[in-house]
Amino acid sequence: MTVLQRSGAEFLGTFWLVFGGCGSAVLAAAFPEVGIGLLGVSLAFGLTVLTMAYAIGHVSGCHLNPAVTIGLWAGGRFSASDIPAYVIAQVLGAVAAAAMLYTIASGGPDYSGGLASNGFAEHSPGQYTMMAALLIEVLLTAFFLFIIMGATDGRAPVGFAPLAIGLGLALIHLISIPVTNTSVNPARSTGPALIEGGVALNQLWLFWVAPIVGGVIGGVIYKMLGSEKPPIEGEAAS
Amino acid sequence: MTVLQRSGAEFLGTFWLVFGGCGSAVLAAAFPEVGIGLLGVSLAFGLTVLTMAYAIGHVSGCHLNPAVTIGLWAGGRFSASDIPAYVIAQVLGAVAAAAMLYTIASGGPDYSGGLASNGFAEHSPGQYTMMAALLIEVLLTAFFLFIIMGATDGRAPVGFAPLAIGLGLALIHLISIPVTNTSVNPARSTGPALIEGGVALNQLWLFWVAPIVGGVIGGVIYKMLGSEKPPIEGEAAS
Amino acid sequence: MTVLQRSGAEFLGTFWLVFGGCGSAVLAAAFPEVGIGLLGVSLAFGLTVLTMAYAIGHVSGCHLNPAVTIGLWAGGRFSASDIPAYVIAQVLGAVAAAAMLYTIASGGPDYSGGLASNGFAEHSPGQYTMMAALLIEVLLTAFFLFIIMGATDGRAPVGFAPLAIGLGLALIHLISIPVTNTSVNPARSTGPALIEGGVALNQLWLFWVAPIVGGVIGGVIYKMLGSEKPPIEGEAAS
Amino acid sequence: MTVLQRSGAEFLGTFWLVFGGCGSAVLAAAFPEVGIGLLGVSLAFGLTVLTMAYAIGHVSGCHLNPAVTIGLWAGGRFSASDIPAYVIAQVLGAVAAAAMLYTIASGGPDYSGGLASNGFAEHSPGQYTMMAALLIEVLLTAFFLFIIMGATDGRAPVGFAPLAIGLGLALIHLISIPVTNTSVNPARSTGPALIEGGVALNQLWLFWVAPIVGGVIGGVIYKMLGSEKPPIEGEAAS
Repeated sequence: MTVLQRSGAEFLGTFWLVFGGCGSAVLAAAFPEVGIGLLGVSLAFGLTVLTMAYAIGHVSGCHLNPAVTIGLWAGGRFSASDIPAYVIAQVLGAVAAAAMLYTIASGGPDYSGGLASNGFAEHSPGQYTMMAALLIEVLLTAFFLFIIMGATDGRAPVGFAPLAIGLGLALIHLISIPVTNTSVNPARSTGPALIEGGVALNQLWLFWVAPIVGGVIGGVIYKMLGSEKPPIEGEAAS
Repeated sequence: MTVLQRSGAEFLGTFWLVFGGCGSAVLAAAFPEVGIGLLGVSLAFGLTVLTMAYAIGHVSGCHLNPAVTIGLWAGGRFSASDIPAYVIAQVLGAVAAAAMLYTIASGGPDYSGGLASNGFAEHSPGQYTMMAALLIEVLLTAFFLFIIMGATDGRAPVGFAPLAIGLGLALIHLISIPVTNTSVNPARSTGPALIEGGVALNQLWLFWVAPIVGGVIGGVIYKMLGSEKPPIEGEAAS
Repeated sequence: MTVLQRSGAEFLGTFWLVFGGCGSAVLAAAFPEVGIGLLGVSLAFGLTVLTMAYAIGHVSGCHLNPAVTIGLWAGGRFSASDIPAYVIAQVLGAVAAAAMLYTIASGGPDYSGGLASNGFAEHSPGQYTMMAALLIEVLLTAFFLFIIMGATDGRAPVGFAPLAIGLGLALIHLISIPVTNTSVNPARSTGPALIEGGVALNQLWLFWVAPIVGGVIGGVIYKMLGSEKPPIEGEAAS
Repeated sequence: MTVLQRSGAEFLGTFWLVFGGCGSAVLAAAFPEVGIGLLGVSLAFGLTVLTMAYAIGHVSGCHLNPAVTIGLWAGGRFSASDIPAYVIAQVLGAVAAAAMLYTIASGGPDYSGGLASNGFAEHSPGQYTMMAALLIEVLLTAFFLFIIMGATDGRAPVGFAPLAIGLGLALIHLISIPVTNTSVNPARSTGPALIEGGVALNQLWLFWVAPIVGGVIGGVIYKMLGSEKPPIEGEAAS
């Protein structure tokens, strides 16, 4: 695959992650009486990754997340020279998705303008402190990378990694939406923050720092357990 | 397999999709206190496709949806000459399912006559505009076809496509039930609209136009990433 | 495997189906504020079959249901001479599970004595008529057997049948709990009815007749699409 | 793999089980209006095991639970000499996770100090008696081990065991959270009890006795059905 095809896949996949995950939160979470709630939003985020990993895992590895790209590099599974193209495509996909979601949500009768951005303190859904937000984002991204490294290890059963990784992201949301609205993904945080502006944009730094630190920790810890490259090249995260 | 066997499988499969998906919405979504809500309806739609794709994927490819059949043709995975037989079987299955659902639902004490038809503006669950409805149906069907093309690509892990595609449809419902009651499938929209009549029938055109346009876009975009036919013939969508 | 080992597996598996499915309904469905609702009960029933099919599919085929055993015989996948031993083990397992569930539930402060028995008319959760109950139980069991036959067909992907069949049972519950509390399984209906007695016992006949008729229809229809025996003997339903 | 690497994997995996499962309960279960409820908590517990079994199944077998380790030994699948290292790592991981969860939850505005500890009688979520608690913990752990033994049997489909085992734990929670808050795992009970102290600590004995007794029963019963070692060494529970 060319770099353009791989970056194109990352753009589309990250668009899907942000449009599907944030879209379910904005459009359906609090629908009166029958809304999908945080459980539905958690599953939606997870299923965006699960579906895309089966669809484009063989094209780009399906990272959809700068913390995954950098964490896989730290774990010895991804080339440093490809990081910029991947991260740029991911951020562009996330921004495009947030803009599209804003357009569609604006077609509803009483849209508040929110795009499910991430935050802490006064912008945390449950008013959690910055320290709690920082801690949980580092911790959950570390485990996310650990799961990605393990499930795509050459010794793990073939074909199941998208399932493990997608459901892992669903699990991460089941735990942490009340704390930060759950990021573990700087691109996912950037899309809504750029369109929403204000407090979401002011707090965006944390959702770049914490996930990347966590991702590096997770990649390195797994490597210490004796990582083994998957047999097929480019299958890093699928 | 003969065309009659393949069309018979599409008839039964689309019956299952409409009876199961719309049936869960009509019978169980708003059951007092313990109803399954939009999350349960989303999973039900997804599981109709997941179960049928394992049951008849090896017979007909398990499209159950004219937008899938036409999108796969646009993506170079399905023969134009088979489109009419598939689409007719799909629509007949959907109509039969809506009629059967009406019969069973009428056995309840206070049935309103609704069959979970699709709609926009005054017939949208959340009162979304026609423009928002058009946009989201095109977009979601495009990604649905993209996932179908990718998960059945010759380079994707074998056997997981029904899981990715079924859960992909669940995800699509998690996002968009409030906007259009979610179609992405002209046959699914036609069954309930024909029995319900009225506004559902007047708005039916959008749920043929948007999914088919989206399906073609999704099929073509995936092809640009370098599609590869699955090794076993007839396994288009399973 | 000896008949005793296979019947033992069916006994334990059907115990699990009834204890897990009805147990989730009795103990957790309506727990104040955070109860699992009909969606949780539907998943619980489905997961009893999914887990047991992976655990004992290679022992007994994991039917756990007289309608499945008889439907597989009608579809040409199971020997008539083994039907009695399977059905007896299934019914005994279901009765033992209902008795155990009664014992545990009685340890709660305000237990009503219910065991999630099946019913119609005045004993239907949503007060549906006998005709609606009969129709939906026949229809859903027919599709259940169709899915079982298809997912265990020699041409279907290997290893995924427990997933398709278990999630198929979850889907069936998502649709029909309000109508009959969902049976599609005479053993599952018999356990609770024998302990509860009264109206549940008076209506038990329907939950033997309808599922068995439906199961036979489903098995026969699938055979008309060109059924192919799975390569490994005894893997009928896993 | 060295014993240190395997114990390290058990430490991290059990940390994940307790942080994810109890974390979802403490942080998200009762979030106003859109909380994930007991259904979300059940899925979270199940997904911690599913994700870790794909990530470290090839390293340590992914027990994450002293009752699993001892039950697998009773079933002839695990060496007695490795039990102490595994159990110590599991308990340490659980305690570390409970401490971390306490730190993060304390960052919320009105944290009660609870860590989703297990209990019976006055400490049972639904006020169930000690006898009911004992009975259900023995029974569910026995079936949990039965499923683990069966899904990792050499005759079961390859690669699906983490799915069956993880979803099996989700199912166990769907049934029994109201009775004991669900343990089936002495390490999972010990972490929160040590930090919470009080009644949780006083009742901790039951959540060592019942799961271990149940685990041994489940392992032995499966062996009587004709257990077969999985082909790859060390894959005990994955």
